[in-house]
Amino acid sequence: MTEQPIPTALKPTGLKPGATIGILGGGQLGRMLSVAASRLGFITKIFEPGANPPAGHVADAVVTAPYEDTEALVAFGRSVDVVTYEFENVPNEALDALQEVVAIHPNREALGTSQDRLVEKDFLSGLGLAVAPYAAVDDAAGLTAALEDIGAPAILKSRRLGYDGKGQVRINDANDIDAAVQALDGVPSVLEGFVDFSAEISVIAARGGDGSIVCFDPGENVHRDGILRTTTVPAEVPAETVAAAVEIAETIAAALDYIGVLGVELFVTEAGLVVNEIAPRVHNSGHWTQDGCIVDQFEQHVRAITGLPLGDGQRHSDIRMENLIGDDMDGLDLLLANPTAAVHLYGKADVRAGRKMAHVNHLL
Amino acid sequence: MTEQPIPTALKPTGLKPGATIGILGGGQLGRMLSVAASRLGFITKIFEPGANPPAGHVADAVVTAPYEDTEALVAFGRSVDVVTYEFENVPNEALDALQEVVAIHPNREALGTSQDRLVEKDFLSGLGLAVAPYAAVDDAAGLTAALEDIGAPAILKSRRLGYDGKGQVRINDANDIDAAVQALDGVPSVLEGFVDFSAEISVIAARGGDGSIVCFDPGENVHRDGILRTTTVPAEVPAETVAAAVEIAETIAAALDYIGVLGVELFVTEAGLVVNEIAPRVHNSGHWTQDGCIVDQFEQHVRAITGLPLGDGQRHSDIRMENLIGDDMDGLDLLLANPTAAVHLYGKADVRAGRKMAHVNHLL
Repeated sequence: MTEQPIPTALKPTGLKPGATIGILGGGQLGRMLSVAASRLGFITKIFEPGANPPAGHVADAVVTAPYEDTEALVAFGRSVDVVTYEFENVPNEALDALQEVVAIHPNREALGTSQDRLVEKDFLSGLGLAVAPYAAVDDAAGLTAALEDIGAPAILKSRRLGYDGKGQVRINDANDIDAAVQALDGVPSVLEGFVDFSAEISVIAARGGDGSIVCFDPGENVHRDGILRTTTVPAEVPAETVAAAVEIAETIAAALDYIGVLGVELFVTEAGLVVNEIAPRVHNSGHWTQDGCIVDQFEQHVRAITGLPLGDGQRHSDIRMENLIGDDMDGLDLLLANPTAAVHLYGKADVRAGRKMAHVNHLL
Repeated sequence: MTEQPIPTALKPTGLKPGATIGILGGGQLGRMLSVAASRLGFITKIFEPGANPPAGHVADAVVTAPYEDTEALVAFGRSVDVVTYEFENVPNEALDALQEVVAIHPNREALGTSQDRLVEKDFLSGLGLAVAPYAAVDDAAGLTAALEDIGAPAILKSRRLGYDGKGQVRINDANDIDAAVQALDGVPSVLEGFVDFSAEISVIAARGGDGSIVCFDPGENVHRDGILRTTTVPAEVPAETVAAAVEIAETIAAALDYIGVLGVELFVTEAGLVVNEIAPRVHNSGHWTQDGCIVDQFEQHVRAITGLPLGDGQRHSDIRMENLIGDDMDGLDLLLANPTAAVHLYGKADVRAGRKMAHVNHLL
């Protein structure tokens, strides 16, 4: 799954408030992790190649260096008590260097699984969980064979580095094969068949080093242009679907010997739940927990990776989370004046099309 | 009220997310203000004489300098878009220097009023509000006269710099006069009579630059050793008491042409409400709002001083806030495992007797 053998994950040693948490990535997830960590008395330190990261505004320190700078990474690792990350595409070489000097949670196996769509699908199938029809594709011949097997329409996705709809090509029929192969440019890929679903839900699960697992109530997600727009909690699904979704998330977390918060996206179909994908980190579809729970997903993650007891995941309010993307920011003034809207801005200087700028939790 | 004439307060000019808020004081209040400011996309900069301030862990920058360092203060003022403070005893000279270069909210009049117990009592009485019997005391003769007037027992308090029970001497009878005068060591003081109250409540009010005022629901406070221990919301008082309390807070805020969050402590007596004291800042008795309201007192303060619309102050949950002081931290592990407890740690390295280390909001 990774080039190097995966060492036994270091368990959290029961960090106490005052300890320092290192976070790889300085975007909005790192920012909200940092705030949650501070609420529990932890110090945070961000590692981020880009200048002026959102997380830097609320962290104790920021290291600005590329992930290829092994010296900077090792110094960073030595200066903190545990390392976590806000995105799954952390380069393997960076993790190889870091894990020599500090515990990393969630572990390499979880990260390696979610970094590669083919590995992920094989892993999920191996657990007996339903996934969309899929086949590995390395070239035009492979795509032709896969398309015959799976049927059109289908989506060709790069195995690695996929994020918010990037690196994906839709294939409506065999005529699209050449263009698709060209678009992916020789990158190892997976062809995925479509799933006929009535809803997409996600479960935000947390697992502690002691094996305890707590799930937040499943939320119902709506995407547009491949980007999450809203998550509504509770999801409008039967109680048995909720129970099945939670069981799937628990199965995955246990199989990965996971420590931290894990996002699991699921399709609701007539034949049952189909796992769409997993994310080994706090997840956009869990932002509602900030205003719906006593312990939100960010604090839950911090509790898990430091060895503190997990919160119970109980929801005290029904919530609809709405992402503000690009020009959605034009509506900010109205949202700030809305008495049931909890506004969370990411501190990004530039508004760009498709860029997540903020989210709002609406009390229902 | 202050040695210098008070210039017309600069109104907030409608700061936009991305602007920088300067905070005088790096304690827990500055820390929680900083987190709230970041949630609205503002950058924060802390001015604090002490090393390693709690607010510094979640702020963009910290200036470490004494309040007597005018050069550092002016540079700080020039580098931010508005200045606010987390404590009322900011030296006048520091404010004189700052106000030449930047808007300060809440304004000097509010600060000057609350910095001096005599000025505060005169101000409140002047508004027709009930306060404890009081008299200015400058020496032994004055104390003797004041004690005859007010009666014993009474408390002699320094006019300035009082905080959490410091600078106060209880007088049970005339025999205590000499010791009390000696203890206050020539500091201008006020003798206060006792008020026979059934409860202490506080109102956290917010007033915007447009004159709009919003109050959170009054909470009921319990003190021990002169330090707040718990605030419970709602306070167990009749609806007319709530209405009267809110009206008092609104009267005070309007009279001060106030911008920001204001704490008003009130005694509930058989004859009605008696104003204990006011604080021109976010207030310990308002910490419950973090887990009971969509917009908490810290965000409300940030909204007020930046010219954003105020939140509506609605409470979505009943809460009991509990301060963790000194050895109370021994109970932290149990609180972290309590599913209805929202734990807020201040990131202070050393536990000391009487030191506020954290608070916990219990959902009721």
